Amino acid sequence: MRRNYKLTVSYDGTRYQGWEHQPDTEMTIQGKLETVLTGMLAAERGEGVPVEKLTVIGAGRTDAGVHARAMVCNVLLDTAKDEAAVQAYLNRYLPEDISVNSVKHCADRFHSRFKATGKVYRYTCWCADAKPVFDRRYVTVLDEMPDIERMRAAAALLKGMHDFRSFCGNSRMSKSTVRTLYDIRIEKSGGYVRFYFHGNGFLQNMVRILVGTLLETGYGRREPEEMTDLLEAGNRRLAGFTAPAKGLCLMKVEY
Amino acid sequence: MRRNYKLTVSYDGTRYQGWEHQPDTEMTIQGKLETVLTGMLAAERGEGVPVEKLTVIGAGRTDAGVHARAMVCNVLLDTAKDEAAVQAYLNRYLPEDISVNSVKHCADRFHSRFKATGKVYRYTCWCADAKPVFDRRYVTVLDEMPDIERMRAAAALLKGMHDFRSFCGNSRMSKSTVRTLYDIRIEKSGGYVRFYFHGNGFLQNMVRILVGTLLETGYGRREPEEMTDLLEAGNRRLAGFTAPAKGLCLMKVEY
Repeated sequence: MRRNYKLTVSYDGTRYQGWEHQPDTEMTIQGKLETVLTGMLAAERGEGVPVEKLTVIGAGRTDAGVHARAMVCNVLLDTAKDEAAVQAYLNRYLPEDISVNSVKHCADRFHSRFKATGKVYRYTCWCADAKPVFDRRYVTVLDEMPDIERMRAAAALLKGMHDFRSFCGNSRMSKSTVRTLYDIRIEKSGGYVRFYFHGNGFLQNMVRILVGTLLETGYGRREPEEMTDLLEAGNRRLAGFTAPAKGLCLMKVEY
Repeated sequence: MRRNYKLTVSYDGTRYQGWEHQPDTEMTIQGKLETVLTGMLAAERGEGVPVEKLTVIGAGRTDAGVHARAMVCNVLLDTAKDEAAVQAYLNRYLPEDISVNSVKHCADRFHSRFKATGKVYRYTCWCADAKPVFDRRYVTVLDEMPDIERMRAAAALLKGMHDFRSFCGNSRMSKSTVRTLYDIRIEKSGGYVRFYFHGNGFLQNMVRILVGTLLETGYGRREPEEMTDLLEAGNRRLAGFTAPAKGLCLMKVEY
């Protein structure tokens, strides 16, 4: 009997072309999960018995190089294994940069993307005389420390429900680009500057463009007050650069 | 004029054959530092002017694959650059897995190895249903959680001044194998088990053999009380396995 499973997954996105299937590469998180799950079912069924096609549905589609500490996904599986055994199988056969942190039965109607009500992303920068040796794959190194208060002033204007078309990396986006940012927190700790974005949903590259725009503000190249006009313009070319993928991490998905 | 410089260095030892020069490889931390410093002096001197041979003296010789958060070393340099400029040059030209965290002038008589009075090493293990995706290069994964109290009981007997020959990886060690362990702390936090060793000096592989022996005790394969006889035996073959290099990190050198 097929049942619906909810999985929580961490990954170091460095080696991957993002969450979602891509043509011509096996290096996606979704692809790795589906391959290992298909292998698990094939081993259960025995030689010569065909295995139904699986689809692992993710709560979001992280870009190439973006990390996750708690991506949520769901998949329909017909397996005799219990939840712990599915988790153990996955962790044994997935590469060391992908971990399944939990596997739980869930309601058939649970859909990790459609049912998600919020997400938290963290973006981490580093600026110091020393280098971030031990987390160099997870931080963006800045040459200069941005002004935190200027960035917080800009962030305050970005909070709330807005049309974030100016911060959307997909120029052909035909659906609504209205999203609600519940909160943006910016914290400095030693050489680290961490941005936390909590919202009901995020457009393609939205967090990275927000960070690029906030950094430009922190460097004095933009005024915090510009954010209001920038939102109204609905023009990606007026916003800041797209901050590198490596600093971004999906921290939480809410239901 | 040659002056003595004290450097504090972090490195991810994964790619390296340890701190010390090895024949037939450029992949040592000492070698990388000396190469970049020689290049710095050559650029200052100008083309055709020979540069004197440099020796970067480290407080200790970490094994292949072992990490450091604060290795201390010293080197005599004749440079017109100030301390900050030397640090900036090193961090620019060293690979991203080696960072120079500080550069300071120091007394001519300062010798990072001979003057060291103590060191702190940390050994990190991980045991959980999930995998340690983000620090997988810096932890040793255990299949089973060891009993912490048994390990602490054994560690209590290892503290103090002892002949640690049973815990020395160099069977031809002709010098004294007496060392003082000021403290051994063992902490469990979530899936992490962290061992901290504070001593006046450490023999080759000593921390890794101590950890291997403590883990065997934590798994019930040894009794904590055995430690006294083990120290007295002075026989490496009676101690436990050498825990993998990747979990070990030099945290501090004291003067």
